Amino acid sequence: MGPVPRPCGGAVGAIAAVNLEVGGLATVTVVLRSNYKVVNEKGYTIESCDHGSLKGWKPSVVRNTVPNLTEENLPPYDYVILCTKNIPDVPPTVVDLIAPALPQNSSKTTLLLLQNGLNIERPFLRPFPNTPILSGISMIGSAEPSPGHIVQDESDKLLIGAFPTSNINPAVPERRAEELVEMYSKGGKTDCQYSPNVLHDRWKKLVFNACLNPICAITGLDDGRIRLADGALDGLVRPAMREIVAAAKAVCGVQLAEDVVEATINVDPLESYLKPSMQQDLEKGNFIEFENLLGEPLREGKDARVPMPTLEVLYQCAKAIQWRIKETKGLVEVPGNKSV
Amino acid sequence: MGPVPRPCGGAVGAIAAVNLEVGGLATVTVVLRSNYKVVNEKGYTIESCDHGSLKGWKPSVVRNTVPNLTEENLPPYDYVILCTKNIPDVPPTVVDLIAPALPQNSSKTTLLLLQNGLNIERPFLRPFPNTPILSGISMIGSAEPSPGHIVQDESDKLLIGAFPTSNINPAVPERRAEELVEMYSKGGKTDCQYSPNVLHDRWKKLVFNACLNPICAITGLDDGRIRLADGALDGLVRPAMREIVAAAKAVCGVQLAEDVVEATINVDPLESYLKPSMQQDLEKGNFIEFENLLGEPLREGKDARVPMPTLEVLYQCAKAIQWRIKETKGLVEVPGNKSV
Repeated sequence: MGPVPRPCGGAVGAIAAVNLEVGGLATVTVVLRSNYKVVNEKGYTIESCDHGSLKGWKPSVVRNTVPNLTEENLPPYDYVILCTKNIPDVPPTVVDLIAPALPQNSSKTTLLLLQNGLNIERPFLRPFPNTPILSGISMIGSAEPSPGHIVQDESDKLLIGAFPTSNINPAVPERRAEELVEMYSKGGKTDCQYSPNVLHDRWKKLVFNACLNPICAITGLDDGRIRLADGALDGLVRPAMREIVAAAKAVCGVQLAEDVVEATINVDPLESYLKPSMQQDLEKGNFIEFENLLGEPLREGKDARVPMPTLEVLYQCAKAIQWRIKETKGLVEVPGNKSV
Repeated sequence: MGPVPRPCGGAVGAIAAVNLEVGGLATVTVVLRSNYKVVNEKGYTIESCDHGSLKGWKPSVVRNTVPNLTEENLPPYDYVILCTKNIPDVPPTVVDLIAPALPQNSSKTTLLLLQNGLNIERPFLRPFPNTPILSGISMIGSAEPSPGHIVQDESDKLLIGAFPTSNINPAVPERRAEELVEMYSKGGKTDCQYSPNVLHDRWKKLVFNACLNPICAITGLDDGRIRLADGALDGLVRPAMREIVAAAKAVCGVQLAEDVVEATINVDPLESYLKPSMQQDLEKGNFIEFENLLGEPLREGKDARVPMPTLEVLYQCAKAIQWRIKETKGLVEVPGNKSV
């Protein structure tokens, strides 16, 4: 038995689990929430541009609770892969969620954060000072239209690298990253690469995620329509993206490519009309992942004295919208409590 | 027969018609659209804090077309009162709409624009250079929950003054304004006053209309919830309002009162949870009135070199949202035409 990664099992996690098991170097335990019952009973139904059609596919272990190493007397996992959304403004935090599966004072388990946004590793540094933490930047197109039914229509491209953490010799997480890349690539169906430049990867993806993602959510226009709406590119999208490019440079010396703004605007074909994740979440009444995608780059940029007027207002709108979602879920009090 | 004002007959227009007829100095012709059939057949059903309960009330003349002076060989009206929404970015413009009822080269008919926003008189200046134009700023709380059913829950407070127009001796529209105030006040049920300071009135109302109105529409939080949502007042509402206060000063030397920002935030009782008009329109799938409420003060402020970063982004979001509404009404092309 090889190392044991453990992705969460949503649309991204399911494909990660397939990749890892298909390569034969990993035994995967997945932890599922809303789709646990159907996947546990019948397995996943997967239509994948990388893997073809898989009916009733199951990873080695399917669970509906996060393994508790102490209470269940389990040996530590080699890898824990977190591919939930990251919503630090709504409890429980991902640290609280995953803590029972991470050994506290050991560097045996490596944590891969297969999540978007900036500074997502920070909440783990204090409670898990000895855990090597990796960054995963996924370019996959994958959705779960109904529980357990995974449609992957865009090839899995994954960049894995090491987050710098003050306590640990950087060589350790780097080696783990390379090992995980090998396991992930072994099946031969995916483009998984080691990245020495985690911050560059993250800021580059923020050109989309801090900008088009909230803009589409707030305006209700998908990433095709926002290109058609008169003035939206010049009035909203380009100014926001330029702020991210400037912040990347000022905050961490990350020089994004000259054409990154136009390339990001045109990342999807003109007539594909795709809804970015935040727009999808908003339409479904789910919480939006705006703090790490938008709030952190904004705060970092402002700290580095980069003018961020566009992202500032988008952030404040997103925050107000999140409050509204919190109300629908009973997380905030509305005195007099009139209906929404 | 006295002078003949002619309000449009929505929620604001209906109460204006009642006020004018009740005073006995006016004979009112109303032009109705969606509620024409029911009002023409059965009259209005009005529940009014000013006028009590009026069942089957009808103004002197009810029409479903704008009177065409030439084709119908009608004498010019003394007053034409426009109380439609003002949506210059969607044809027909209000000028096109009202033109048949206005004599072209006469100053006999006075036009009252009972509408919100800035520069609403400008489109009339060239086609109707001799028409005295008045500004109406209404503080009424009135709605039309179903066609012809008017609920007025907040007293009618109306400020009427003269827009300055280059062609006409200012004394003329000022006299007309005073005459109209008299007609409007005669019934004794309303607080209608002559205002010598039209620009002050308009900028003061913009503190609400350029700020809370689009912010509530964009975030989906009503004017009570926006006060509860953490950070929304300091992050969005106050910055936007301060930009309007600065623009009022820089653009036309209008010095708004020290406490105008806080007073506007708290204009409604804490637990009343009212949806501003733009939020209501958005929820109903109607066009939003953002160009004169938000676009014009923004453009004027920027021309006067006032920094307007908050209103700029709110404007761009509103514009993108309007484009989406245009798509639902078939006014813009979406190549490949996927469903919304």
